[in-house]
Amino acid sequence: MANLQAQSKSSPAKARTAITPIRDENFPEWYQSVIRASDMAENAPVRGCMVIKPYGYALWENIQRALDDMIKAEGVQNAYFPLLIPLSFLSREAEHVEGFAKECAIVTHHRLEKGPKGGLIPAPDSELEEPFIIRPTSETIIGDSMSKWVQSYRDLPLLLNQWCNVMRWEMRTRMFLRTTEFLWQEGHNAFASAKEAHEDAKKMLGVYQRLYEDWLAISGIPGEKTAEERFPGANVTFTIEGMMQDGKALQLCTSHDLGQNFARSCNIQFQGEDGQQHFAHTTSWGLTTRSIGALIMSHADDDGMIMPPKIAPYQVAIIPVLRDEQNAAIMEYCNTLAQRLKTQGIRVHLDKSDARTPDKMWTAIKKGIPLRVEIGQREMDEGKLTHVRRDLGKDSKAICSVDEFCGSVRKILDSIQSSLLDRSRKFTAENIHDVKSIGDVEAFFREDKIGFCRMDVKLIADPAYDGLKKELALSSRCLPFEFDGKKVIVGRSY
Amino acid sequence: MANLQAQSKSSPAKARTAITPIRDENFPEWYQSVIRASDMAENAPVRGCMVIKPYGYALWENIQRALDDMIKAEGVQNAYFPLLIPLSFLSREAEHVEGFAKECAIVTHHRLEKGPKGGLIPAPDSELEEPFIIRPTSETIIGDSMSKWVQSYRDLPLLLNQWCNVMRWEMRTRMFLRTTEFLWQEGHNAFASAKEAHEDAKKMLGVYQRLYEDWLAISGIPGEKTAEERFPGANVTFTIEGMMQDGKALQLCTSHDLGQNFARSCNIQFQGEDGQQHFAHTTSWGLTTRSIGALIMSHADDDGMIMPPKIAPYQVAIIPVLRDEQNAAIMEYCNTLAQRLKTQGIRVHLDKSDARTPDKMWTAIKKGIPLRVEIGQREMDEGKLTHVRRDLGKDSKAICSVDEFCGSVRKILDSIQSSLLDRSRKFTAENIHDVKSIGDVEAFFREDKIGFCRMDVKLIADPAYDGLKKELALSSRCLPFEFDGKKVIVGRSY
Repeated sequence: MANLQAQSKSSPAKARTAITPIRDENFPEWYQSVIRASDMAENAPVRGCMVIKPYGYALWENIQRALDDMIKAEGVQNAYFPLLIPLSFLSREAEHVEGFAKECAIVTHHRLEKGPKGGLIPAPDSELEEPFIIRPTSETIIGDSMSKWVQSYRDLPLLLNQWCNVMRWEMRTRMFLRTTEFLWQEGHNAFASAKEAHEDAKKMLGVYQRLYEDWLAISGIPGEKTAEERFPGANVTFTIEGMMQDGKALQLCTSHDLGQNFARSCNIQFQGEDGQQHFAHTTSWGLTTRSIGALIMSHADDDGMIMPPKIAPYQVAIIPVLRDEQNAAIMEYCNTLAQRLKTQGIRVHLDKSDARTPDKMWTAIKKGIPLRVEIGQREMDEGKLTHVRRDLGKDSKAICSVDEFCGSVRKILDSIQSSLLDRSRKFTAENIHDVKSIGDVEAFFREDKIGFCRMDVKLIADPAYDGLKKELALSSRCLPFEFDGKKVIVGRSY
Repeated sequence: MANLQAQSKSSPAKARTAITPIRDENFPEWYQSVIRASDMAENAPVRGCMVIKPYGYALWENIQRALDDMIKAEGVQNAYFPLLIPLSFLSREAEHVEGFAKECAIVTHHRLEKGPKGGLIPAPDSELEEPFIIRPTSETIIGDSMSKWVQSYRDLPLLLNQWCNVMRWEMRTRMFLRTTEFLWQEGHNAFASAKEAHEDAKKMLGVYQRLYEDWLAISGIPGEKTAEERFPGANVTFTIEGMMQDGKALQLCTSHDLGQNFARSCNIQFQGEDGQQHFAHTTSWGLTTRSIGALIMSHADDDGMIMPPKIAPYQVAIIPVLRDEQNAAIMEYCNTLAQRLKTQGIRVHLDKSDARTPDKMWTAIKKGIPLRVEIGQREMDEGKLTHVRRDLGKDSKAICSVDEFCGSVRKILDSIQSSLLDRSRKFTAENIHDVKSIGDVEAFFREDKIGFCRMDVKLIADPAYDGLKKELALSSRCLPFEFDGKKVIVGRSY
């Protein structure tokens, strides 16, 4: 099948692609193009914010549904806490505000009035005695509730989660990866003992790992953050670091053991079985719409998005190949198939638009719909259909009967899902380079090689490492669990 | 069964109840007590805001799920738009901002710094050139996107919905009914013709009516708002007005035909089939966490909440009646039942707490769990259980075998659901009073009678009506569809 929608006209010799520039030419621009071509999101008229369009939001809903079920299975309950946080709350945890919460949206007034020049201005007499900030994260406001709800060891553990929007006034933003406002879930759990909190933080990271591997088909590196990279106010921060196709690291999620730090600042105390008052031990753990950025940079190719079937908004695209005659019959044939697949629980998109056939195909490709079905007169006459896997492209094109397809569609989708995970796993494993010295690290990144360096954790203390990190924009991504804290992963990051 | 948790000690002669004051004594305080006793929400440390606790949030999730499915079935797609709205956007629709959007949270700064007195203050050099407001509703910001997305008649209809938080700086707040921040869905649809928009606004009100009747078991009065009560910027506002148990009206939801007003102010234009440019015709429609307030004030009684089974967080409460001996066996028996019911898709709460048996029962009653099962040694020995309907109380107590119960539990829940709706329907119908003059209206409300007056719509123009409305805090609730615009409902409202 010829690539009819190619946009790269500058170098006619090379294979044309739906996305320009291609990954090798300019990865960041390719990323933006994939988002645009798949119609997932666009920049908003509000600085640093994005509009999540229906196709992107449907993806987020599928991620949410999968993760929410897993979170609830761990006994965590959803709740909702205020968007606004009184300024005084923020000041309580010194390290937290110092390291984290200064760049934020501040609400200072509560009424508009007509200004001297005619437009609307904040009414001076509506200035708030105490400003509020829009939550950048909710440790302090949820901690305030926890301090009331937790009285005795019988009230523990207290396991809470909320799905919400948060804001951080970021200077450089990029859709899904870093936006001023983003969507996430934030879990906040409280325990009677340090051991339980530590285990919980690790367990919730395991939940995220299952989400990424089983649903998003992304194989990341779970581990612990170095002291320098920890969440401000945390004793321990666990992370999963993903390797994107350009070899850069993306922090996929974090889970923090906050020790008694926030319990002290929020006064979360309980009477223990010993009759004494104790501070609780808390954790927090979050996963954001950045996961969509990870999906794109892990799976998409030079023709656009590739959605893992389990979280794809549409799992099968049906493209009617119309040629004036018999169009009604072909549409009817397609519609019957769509209904049959829906009955099987498959998410189907039947393209009913009046676009040209190649445009319909390229739309399905750029949107990354895992499996594409094409039906024209010939297929209809023979009771058949043509199907193509998005991940394998035209080499996977096959013709079979409708019955055969309906019987095997689940298996094909499962196969796409596991292929994507295998590919992610292989790519990550192949691009981790064991090095023996900071000099090796320098050589690796000066040559712009793709991937991470893995080195002895003791090398973090090497005086040369600090300068090199700054110069080459490197960071210690994590101490992988796999090496029990003895090794550290170094990479460039988003 | 004696009411063991009665709290009213002042008048020992009267029947004791779990909630004090009772409805007849002080309805607004009873309302707050029901929320507290059911553990659904509490006031937040942020002025006018609430914390939605897990039990209240689970209820909201069930309402969301039901409504979201219905909205999607109408072909509407979810999306997400920014929380912050540039001030200039708001100024575009003059009537909108005049009537509506002045009391709102205004973001003026984006960074905190240490102040002269040591605490944190908004950094003066971080003042925004143009302030933002936190969305009180999103017509203007969604309209801005629509103006880009709609180019041709082929792009219409455009059907969008978002689930989000909004803020309105309310002076007098009450949990769920009117809070500074609340959760809702807001739908925004655009059409090529006035007729389609008008029909859509009415159709989406029909969706809400089905949600209220089929899921929340509330029978409201669907109709049109008078010009005075319309949403600012709307040509027509449709509403469902619910009659609460104290006879006051609660606006349960609204759906607006915005005509071309917002399309003009947001510049939503399209090229029609005639080749000319036209402004689109838009609608917006919303339902909020206020629906939980409606649930409470429609169904709860002097012993606390009563949840309609279809949206109840838990449909069946299992109370083990423990007496030291055989406790493990009783718990095992209860657990087996719980698992069996879950397999049937029933949402079950097995009370594993070490509370006293009567306390367990009263917790289930106050939380309004539709069906309560009690299992003690006797029940276990006979392979039986005792069950009680929350809506009918102890008179409905019955003993039957576990098999029999599992076979009939769905039917019992359905019966509770339809009883609640019948009750709501009957109460509303019985408390609408047809009157012939403004004098009749005055007499009715001066005597503090419960319910609404229904009168000829022409009486709105009676000069006496205006003064009376102000004096007795009355308002025209709606022109019920049932009377085709010829009658108007008058009542006191929340």
